[in-house]
Amino acid sequence: MTTPRPSRYPFPDLNALPEDLRSKILEVQQKAGFIPNVFLALARRPAEWRAFFAYHDALMMPETVGRNSQLSKGDREMIVTATSAANQCLYCVVAHGALLRIYEKKPLVADQVAINHRKADISPRQRAMLDFAMKVCLASHEVDDSDFTALHAHGFTDEDAWDIAAITAFFGMSNRLASFSGMVPNPEFYLLGRLPKASA
Amino acid sequence: MTTPRPSRYPFPDLNALPEDLRSKILEVQQKAGFIPNVFLALARRPAEWRAFFAYHDALMMPETVGRNSQLSKGDREMIVTATSAANQCLYCVVAHGALLRIYEKKPLVADQVAINHRKADISPRQRAMLDFAMKVCLASHEVDDSDFTALHAHGFTDEDAWDIAAITAFFGMSNRLASFSGMVPNPEFYLLGRLPKASA
Amino acid sequence: MTTPRPSRYPFPDLNALPEDLRSKILEVQQKAGFIPNVFLALARRPAEWRAFFAYHDALMMPETVGRNSQLSKGDREMIVTATSAANQCLYCVVAHGALLRIYEKKPLVADQVAINHRKADISPRQRAMLDFAMKVCLASHEVDDSDFTALHAHGFTDEDAWDIAAITAFFGMSNRLASFSGMVPNPEFYLLGRLPKASA
Amino acid sequence: MTTPRPSRYPFPDLNALPEDLRSKILEVQQKAGFIPNVFLALARRPAEWRAFFAYHDALMMPETVGRNSQLSKGDREMIVTATSAANQCLYCVVAHGALLRIYEKKPLVADQVAINHRKADISPRQRAMLDFAMKVCLASHEVDDSDFTALHAHGFTDEDAWDIAAITAFFGMSNRLASFSGMVPNPEFYLLGRLPKASA
Amino acid sequence: MTTPRPSRYPFPDLNALPEDLRSKILEVQQKAGFIPNVFLALARRPAEWRAFFAYHDALMMPETVGRNSQLSKGDREMIVTATSAANQCLYCVVAHGALLRIYEKKPLVADQVAINHRKADISPRQRAMLDFAMKVCLASHEVDDSDFTALHAHGFTDEDAWDIAAITAFFGMSNRLASFSGMVPNPEFYLLGRLPKASA
Amino acid sequence: MTTPRPSRYPFPDLNALPEDLRSKILEVQQKAGFIPNVFLALARRPAEWRAFFAYHDALMMPETVGRNSQLSKGDREMIVTATSAANQCLYCVVAHGALLRIYEKKPLVADQVAINHRKADISPRQRAMLDFAMKVCLASHEVDDSDFTALHAHGFTDEDAWDIAAITAFFGMSNRLASFSGMVPNPEFYLLGRLPKASA
Repeated sequence: MTTPRPSRYPFPDLNALPEDLRSKILEVQQKAGFIPNVFLALARRPAEWRAFFAYHDALMMPETVGRNSQLSKGDREMIVTATSAANQCLYCVVAHGALLRIYEKKPLVADQVAINHRKADISPRQRAMLDFAMKVCLASHEVDDSDFTALHAHGFTDEDAWDIAAITAFFGMSNRLASFSGMVPNPEFYLLGRLPKASA
Repeated sequence: MTTPRPSRYPFPDLNALPEDLRSKILEVQQKAGFIPNVFLALARRPAEWRAFFAYHDALMMPETVGRNSQLSKGDREMIVTATSAANQCLYCVVAHGALLRIYEKKPLVADQVAINHRKADISPRQRAMLDFAMKVCLASHEVDDSDFTALHAHGFTDEDAWDIAAITAFFGMSNRLASFSGMVPNPEFYLLGRLPKASA
Repeated sequence: MTTPRPSRYPFPDLNALPEDLRSKILEVQQKAGFIPNVFLALARRPAEWRAFFAYHDALMMPETVGRNSQLSKGDREMIVTATSAANQCLYCVVAHGALLRIYEKKPLVADQVAINHRKADISPRQRAMLDFAMKVCLASHEVDDSDFTALHAHGFTDEDAWDIAAITAFFGMSNRLASFSGMVPNPEFYLLGRLPKASA
Repeated sequence: MTTPRPSRYPFPDLNALPEDLRSKILEVQQKAGFIPNVFLALARRPAEWRAFFAYHDALMMPETVGRNSQLSKGDREMIVTATSAANQCLYCVVAHGALLRIYEKKPLVADQVAINHRKADISPRQRAMLDFAMKVCLASHEVDDSDFTALHAHGFTDEDAWDIAAITAFFGMSNRLASFSGMVPNPEFYLLGRLPKASA
Repeated sequence: MTTPRPSRYPFPDLNALPEDLRSKILEVQQKAGFIPNVFLALARRPAEWRAFFAYHDALMMPETVGRNSQLSKGDREMIVTATSAANQCLYCVVAHGALLRIYEKKPLVADQVAINHRKADISPRQRAMLDFAMKVCLASHEVDDSDFTALHAHGFTDEDAWDIAAITAFFGMSNRLASFSGMVPNPEFYLLGRLPKASA
Repeated sequence: MTTPRPSRYPFPDLNALPEDLRSKILEVQQKAGFIPNVFLALARRPAEWRAFFAYHDALMMPETVGRNSQLSKGDREMIVTATSAANQCLYCVVAHGALLRIYEKKPLVADQVAINHRKADISPRQRAMLDFAMKVCLASHEVDDSDFTALHAHGFTDEDAWDIAAITAFFGMSNRLASFSGMVPNPEFYLLGRLPKASA
């Protein structure tokens, strides 16, 4: 398979990494069948790696830190996909679009959200969620009470608003890291979740 | 398969269409295995349909009007995909992204071009082609000699520049028609060309 | 009379053109008193020329294709003028501004629409028409039901919305073609319709 | 003749104005044949009127304050027209476009500059002048040495740069005053300088 | 104290200035303890200097021209600070932010208004005032009746709207003059009004 | 002292926080003399708090994770101030502007960087650093080799580029969190480092 120009920063040798990074990466590899490039690209700086994934997990897998969230896994990946598309981040749209397809069990939804979320086949509640995310992504200085009111109309609480905003903000960071450093998605991501049977 | 909200304008009955439209549409259906929605969506106005597809064919299949072009089929679909992504047109990114994958025989290239053409795995010549297309798409009033010079550096002639600009301009029109009317891509397009063997 | 820098692409010899182009162009010349440059500029590619003017006529002279439209000739040229101003297209603002003055019998309206349509001396219905056109022109991916509702409030139907959007989209294409190729308006256009008696 | 919606602020009675305003206005009327609306619109606040026109004259008629300028009358009005078009100010494009036509003795130039100065039939020196003006108009915070260097290449001095920038800045103010208050151009302006013989 | 790169245009010798400029500047120096750079930077062109400060005083010290204004001194400087921040003008944000702190007797308010006026500790009436000012500053061509209605809801009259708009427009000019010419704020401004006792 | 409208999300009780958060917060309080609001605002979600500050420290205090950086403390805070100003984040401009003043020992530099970094009294090397940061902040999808080359010309390595980009990306996240949640700066920050003796 072909890949776009490789990352500017060489990947570290997996075996030379600190043990906690190495074991987490091997665990991911076992589950996914390959090592998503972000795990190796950031590993050249272990302290940043640890903070990045700790933050990632606290937001994207809240159950691992003992927190409940009204947002489903699919909701969260939908926010990531829309944010990453707004920031034109190749790595994150492809990688998280794959997760979005898998969690939502909708093979078409990631492309729709990435191209124009206003035209995507999503619920009105999800549309409101993405509208809030896009405001945080593109004009956070203009967020005001009316934006929260719009969320409340769909049953979201201020706690959910925090989830949406924090995921949007975290992946805005992730998008910038991936884009500036030339991180490219693993070829495996592109097809994941597109073939209903195989990916479910 | 799921689809996003349907077009605002109902599709006409295929059998009630003028004969030339009907036979062309059936021919497309036979070749593709399905009727791309654009053929039905525009058919409600036969005169516009005829002009639209005559223009489309003159630009995208120049051999049918006795013209040669230095742009390959893949080059042309790459311009369409980049233009449609810049205009956030769901129908055209999905439909022409499929054609781009098929013609270029690169299952990943359409997503790359649609998300961020600067990071796509394309040739420097194609990159220059897309840079010119994006200038025409987003700031045609600023196009000047330096833009042509940049094309010439990659072996493009002014005749090629016309091809690039005209395709960009035509699909800018197409994007607006599809988006305003809520045209959605057929589900079949999403997977076309992603599985190398089957789609080649 | 002076003219800005000429088109990058030389005009073909009228006598060397295919007969259908030549006769149509001579017909236009007879009616207008001169050949608008767009007819010669595009004639270097006859197939594109035919499609362009077939499309143009289907939208701008619907009676020629057996269709009625609630939009007046003046309405249509007003959409073209506003669209072309938004795209900063010299040829189209000057040429279609002339037609707008003539059809509306208002010598001042074209300049007003081109400079700032919000301040133009037009009806509230025309203002709503231009607001819809500008949304299609500048942010077609954001068009939604509320934009149609705003049109309906002024008596426009969805069929009229198609007219407005299609004219906007077609001239968005035309603007890009004229600007990238350096097409300049014939000097005759500038004064047309400015002297009430002569132009009516 | 028709006019767009009138100014939000009523014009004061000419006879009730302070003597210095009244005599200046009558003098202008005698020369031009009509009273340009800006003279009456601003007269409701005499102190601001006096400062506005003193500033205007210092920049646009430097000889009246004992200063020479390398910029011709036509150059100055060209800057005003381009600036006012960038700010979409109906009054100023129409009024100063008229003066531009007259001073440059080019009936077409004002429309060209207002629609897209990059395509206008002007000298390379004037093009550089307008590029500098547009930078001051649209992104003054980004002006740096390279912008002055570009001017110097066409024979402009830093003193000329001051002229260009000050005219741009002053009419940026004027544009905002005219637009917010709904000032409309006198119908007479639209045709001035378009008929070579009559207006020279 | 350090200062950023000095103005491109050398300051004239105070003693060589016309008497009216010199005496006004000395008067300011006596009151403020230093000569704000704008007084010297503009003095190289006395006629422009006179008009600039006459206009400034008419708007910012209306009592000196016999006019009352519902806007307080603090309101006026708040408009200047917000406008200058929108235009990224170093001189005016620093100099007028100092005056804003002093007149409002709020040591923190200038930084808040300059960074994001939506988050500033100001009254709803002042927020409406700044919203109107920002519309005039950034999109004067779109100002319409609804913008005045929003002001009226807070007790502002159309006369107050004129004040707000004219101050915004005047300082938009001032911002462009300061930025293009590289005018830097006197170091003294930075601290003024930040220490409650000393500055009251 | 006055403060703008308080955060939408109530601060947790310091004594009810997990021990690691509480002790770190008390340590900060002891050093700074007050608790910066960000420590309490984020503490309502301890897992996110831990990841946020671990990431913060890895980037802003690299020595704590055993890493050297060519960027000085002042360089780093300058990037944060410029990024936060671009994102119009009240909390971060005020808080990190204070640190910038202190580390650079330049009482004026933070205001200059926040208002218009192009006019700030900083070194050419710092200017290049901020230009790169602004590209990552505002258009990370367009970062390419030429941006790195511009850094190299000032002695920065690709490792330094990572520092600049990661700090910009991290604070882009922080800015969005602070703005959406209405976090306000502690009044103490505004004056820190402005009085050279007291703040050093």
